[in-house]
Amino acid sequence: MTKQLFLLLFLFHFLILNRAASADPDPLFDFCVAAPKSTHYPGHSPNFPNHPCKDPSNATVEDFIYTLQSLSPENISAAGFSALAVGPSLFPGLNTLGMSFVRAEFARGAVNVPHFHPRATELAYVLEGEIYSGFVDSNNRIFARILKNGEVMVFPKGLVHFQMNVGKGNAVIFGCFNSQNPGLEKLPFTIFGSGIDGELLEKAFGMSKGEVQKMSGRFGPKEIR
Amino acid sequence: MTKQLFLLLFLFHFLILNRAASADPDPLFDFCVAAPKSTHYPGHSPNFPNHPCKDPSNATVEDFIYTLQSLSPENISAAGFSALAVGPSLFPGLNTLGMSFVRAEFARGAVNVPHFHPRATELAYVLEGEIYSGFVDSNNRIFARILKNGEVMVFPKGLVHFQMNVGKGNAVIFGCFNSQNPGLEKLPFTIFGSGIDGELLEKAFGMSKGEVQKMSGRFGPKEIR
Amino acid sequence: MTKQLFLLLFLFHFLILNRAASADPDPLFDFCVAAPKSTHYPGHSPNFPNHPCKDPSNATVEDFIYTLQSLSPENISAAGFSALAVGPSLFPGLNTLGMSFVRAEFARGAVNVPHFHPRATELAYVLEGEIYSGFVDSNNRIFARILKNGEVMVFPKGLVHFQMNVGKGNAVIFGCFNSQNPGLEKLPFTIFGSGIDGELLEKAFGMSKGEVQKMSGRFGPKEIR
Amino acid sequence: MTKQLFLLLFLFHFLILNRAASADPDPLFDFCVAAPKSTHYPGHSPNFPNHPCKDPSNATVEDFIYTLQSLSPENISAAGFSALAVGPSLFPGLNTLGMSFVRAEFARGAVNVPHFHPRATELAYVLEGEIYSGFVDSNNRIFARILKNGEVMVFPKGLVHFQMNVGKGNAVIFGCFNSQNPGLEKLPFTIFGSGIDGELLEKAFGMSKGEVQKMSGRFGPKEIR
Amino acid sequence: MTKQLFLLLFLFHFLILNRAASADPDPLFDFCVAAPKSTHYPGHSPNFPNHPCKDPSNATVEDFIYTLQSLSPENISAAGFSALAVGPSLFPGLNTLGMSFVRAEFARGAVNVPHFHPRATELAYVLEGEIYSGFVDSNNRIFARILKNGEVMVFPKGLVHFQMNVGKGNAVIFGCFNSQNPGLEKLPFTIFGSGIDGELLEKAFGMSKGEVQKMSGRFGPKEIR
Amino acid sequence: MTKQLFLLLFLFHFLILNRAASADPDPLFDFCVAAPKSTHYPGHSPNFPNHPCKDPSNATVEDFIYTLQSLSPENISAAGFSALAVGPSLFPGLNTLGMSFVRAEFARGAVNVPHFHPRATELAYVLEGEIYSGFVDSNNRIFARILKNGEVMVFPKGLVHFQMNVGKGNAVIFGCFNSQNPGLEKLPFTIFGSGIDGELLEKAFGMSKGEVQKMSGRFGPKEIR
Repeated sequence: MTKQLFLLLFLFHFLILNRAASADPDPLFDFCVAAPKSTHYPGHSPNFPNHPCKDPSNATVEDFIYTLQSLSPENISAAGFSALAVGPSLFPGLNTLGMSFVRAEFARGAVNVPHFHPRATELAYVLEGEIYSGFVDSNNRIFARILKNGEVMVFPKGLVHFQMNVGKGNAVIFGCFNSQNPGLEKLPFTIFGSGIDGELLEKAFGMSKGEVQKMSGRFGPKEIR
Repeated sequence: MTKQLFLLLFLFHFLILNRAASADPDPLFDFCVAAPKSTHYPGHSPNFPNHPCKDPSNATVEDFIYTLQSLSPENISAAGFSALAVGPSLFPGLNTLGMSFVRAEFARGAVNVPHFHPRATELAYVLEGEIYSGFVDSNNRIFARILKNGEVMVFPKGLVHFQMNVGKGNAVIFGCFNSQNPGLEKLPFTIFGSGIDGELLEKAFGMSKGEVQKMSGRFGPKEIR
Repeated sequence: MTKQLFLLLFLFHFLILNRAASADPDPLFDFCVAAPKSTHYPGHSPNFPNHPCKDPSNATVEDFIYTLQSLSPENISAAGFSALAVGPSLFPGLNTLGMSFVRAEFARGAVNVPHFHPRATELAYVLEGEIYSGFVDSNNRIFARILKNGEVMVFPKGLVHFQMNVGKGNAVIFGCFNSQNPGLEKLPFTIFGSGIDGELLEKAFGMSKGEVQKMSGRFGPKEIR
Repeated sequence: MTKQLFLLLFLFHFLILNRAASADPDPLFDFCVAAPKSTHYPGHSPNFPNHPCKDPSNATVEDFIYTLQSLSPENISAAGFSALAVGPSLFPGLNTLGMSFVRAEFARGAVNVPHFHPRATELAYVLEGEIYSGFVDSNNRIFARILKNGEVMVFPKGLVHFQMNVGKGNAVIFGCFNSQNPGLEKLPFTIFGSGIDGELLEKAFGMSKGEVQKMSGRFGPKEIR
Repeated sequence: MTKQLFLLLFLFHFLILNRAASADPDPLFDFCVAAPKSTHYPGHSPNFPNHPCKDPSNATVEDFIYTLQSLSPENISAAGFSALAVGPSLFPGLNTLGMSFVRAEFARGAVNVPHFHPRATELAYVLEGEIYSGFVDSNNRIFARILKNGEVMVFPKGLVHFQMNVGKGNAVIFGCFNSQNPGLEKLPFTIFGSGIDGELLEKAFGMSKGEVQKMSGRFGPKEIR
Repeated sequence: MTKQLFLLLFLFHFLILNRAASADPDPLFDFCVAAPKSTHYPGHSPNFPNHPCKDPSNATVEDFIYTLQSLSPENISAAGFSALAVGPSLFPGLNTLGMSFVRAEFARGAVNVPHFHPRATELAYVLEGEIYSGFVDSNNRIFARILKNGEVMVFPKGLVHFQMNVGKGNAVIFGCFNSQNPGLEKLPFTIFGSGIDGELLEKAFGMSKGEVQKMSGRFGPKEIR
């Protein structure tokens, strides 16, 4: 019995990974609500972004709605910057529909470090506050200024962008992506915290060995995004 | 034993739903014939449009051919309007190839109600008869006239279109789609037969409560497409 | 001289229409800011959604930012329902990036009539108020409930959806699309206001000639979206 | 004056070629009717498949309809095999919508030589007659049999396929493509009629120099597709 | 126990085929390393090109690297022409990333017969030698000349192309494809070795029955690519 | 006359920018050779990556071939790292075919700084030397090791990657992209040389004002990629 169960789980281990790497363009059906993770993803990496569909006849309206919680003002201050990215894992109805979103909250002076999303354009709508915001293109030109409440900025697909709360109170952003899993590389961590060979970083950034080590200590393994 | 079987079926229930929601653009292989539903889809919704591939070495020429049956003239008259949409469920070889088709037959005076396909352009070829045929664009303009035998009309992706046999005999159409599962919303049923809140419909269409109730009675749950 | 100018304008008339009907998947460059309409679109239909790029070296940060204006509470009440859809015509930086957005404001009881977008999924974020909101799928099933401030609903690509303010005050929505030009068919107008043959509508909706005429009078040519 | 005109035409020569090479997935608007060739394509190759849009406010219902003419039975017999491929050049409304079609007529015994379409899957519907029909996959397997009136065969994207009328009378096919310009390589002409180096062909096909020369004479320059 | 195992394997047989036929455009995640074939593909056709992902937390750097082996000069001479196509089966990290490659080696005078890839453009970089190289377009025009070491030629998606070593020594090519599974139809085998009806081939190529039989004998079933 | 010419050039200025932002998936024709820049792009930014097609009947074999030049060993040493990216501007036949390539040469110890391509996966083939090579994923994991002559590494679409010659001699790489214009953000320049607000960089990287200023001085405006 245990042997069979083991076999089952062993097989299952591979089966659950049999996930589609489908592109965004056009879905194949009206929707494909992600099946609940707890059930069909036992023991695999929580980072895995795609999902089988649940039986469409079991889909409910709740599958297509997500309730965003605001942080309380004190919590924002404590956290500095906090962002909740919502994709099919949290919001099953998004699966295969080519969109996801993020709500980000900034305490006074807080920063969303230079980063990019390898698979999506982002529309960022400032709900509250004043946010210095911008991106850099392939020619190394910057497009940046302070956005106020009510302004929407577009960050073209795959380009490095960044934000800083420059107002007197908290700031809040709602961002949409045209991918269900835009990906995210936060550059201080990507560059100095992933373990790239130190000599390469010294040469690439013109830093001394000591400077690179200080950066690595700051963004290294202990702190992962 | 029963327990294990239950476990197997329980796992299987999720596995069979592990279907790709792949887009149309380019297939990954020469073909991917849909595996027979009876085998791998026990107990799940018959509406589910996508399919795993069967082992390609078992593909046969019959997987790539579908035989359309014509209704007899009497049956057409009785049915008024009858349409057979052929996708991968009926014609396994279509799976992943980005196309499907429909054959529709109209008795004298019969109507194909205003509807649209959310995921495909349609080419409609009039094989027999005279059919008033048209679509409406995003600017609310209509493009319609009577088509005769031998004429082909294109209904752009996602736009509302409609047909009515205005000739003296039966009429027949062969339509192609550039999606294996174009989807279908038949507007009288979508609007008045799905259970949208009555007050909303009254306001949207300027109808009285009684008028909306009459429509709902006509297109409601008992009659689903 | 006039002759030459005429020739120039004649040529130009065609050249300005030489626009790309490119798909969303992946842009060809970092961005392609829409060139100003006043300059290059003399005398052509204002509905035309695509645009040539302006010289990228002339792009400015303002090309990538749009300022949404809120209506004053009195204006919302007067208007009932008002929606501003923002695409590349208003916000040049969106061009080719595969996204656009809408801000919609509802007076108490106001309705966003059943409609659909043929080319996009929509994420609708309720910024204020309580909104009965839903969509209908290809199987004629409805997915609807009342959304509150902070909730996000997804309307899958191409499916009919609708909204009604059921709260005690105004309501506001911010919606994102994964197409720069999602298209829009507002069904009361599409069906009854575009000029579809009356007999077809009578048969399709089971209405009398008088009922259809009343509807056509209500949604006909004089009132276009 | 002549100089200026020359300059204009010179510029125009390049401008008319400024056409989008957009992919099929999703159009950017409801439609983009091809502007008339006579007007905007002076003096350029008639083979050019893409087109600027005409002003959408000038679109008419005729832009979305094409009338297929049948050959008379005598003409079919004389021609052996004749095919009319209909894309945006003949049917302007197809432009950007990702579909086109063909009507092919076969005299008794006539052959549609082995060929393939590099950019489309084809659905072939037999309207009349009996046609031996098939394709070959990447593993060199053949899928072929005789189709009768009413049967539909799918030729997967890019695979070599062929047809031969094996019935006692004429045969007719209606074929749809999921590309507005599927392309066509007719293999006897591609291989032996394009001017590939003779030594290469001898080695590739195991033919003698004389045999290759005979083939080249048969399919060479004088007869193009 | 045997019965259960049988059931498991029976289920598994279908499950392993539940593979995504996703298009190339945009992956859904950073990567999706193909799970090892030996484990999850027991007893199915080795030709099957798509793969489930392995658990991303188990991915290693070796999944993203492939070591190309050069043939020794003697082996090249013996083989004439030898090509190693590397896709996700050999190089698991390529899975879903939309690329694959080939290394081809030619003995003096050796030929890569006319062929095409139904799903990819190819970039061919000549690493060594002199190679007559070309393709034929839909209008039956040839684009060919002798390439030398250091030259790169592009073969547009789906068009017939060919190569012959015309130098005095061996020749080597490295080719890239923009599909993880470009497909391959080698025309001598596709046409004469797949079993297409002899009468059709006689008519298509203007050959006698004997000539076609000789060709079929040369390229028939015994020798498959 | 001058006035007219001015008008012509003024119009032309916009017309030349009327370029398609088409996606990669499927071309619309066999090829679309980029028209010569000198002719139709007078006075516009040399960075502009897309191109109108030249008349296909004027295409020649040279349009489809590019000759890569190797640097002499001395030049490599002097340059440290030098890369030539080849897209449609240099190699007109690539236009619309969804591919481009790069040849990079490294002196001993030279570095290709951390960078990414927003629109393409890269296949990098080591032609000569030993190169420490790797990428970082969205979870901040590194995949890196030393590659030797003959090894191919894949850098998934949009992820940060880097290389350093760790061998005793020069090193050379040939890389392919599945986009005709992959884009490029070189991170030291993107972050420290584009003009991002200093306070934001201090906070993002935990650097002092002086440290950020030193970096900005190193990578700032004077040195652009």
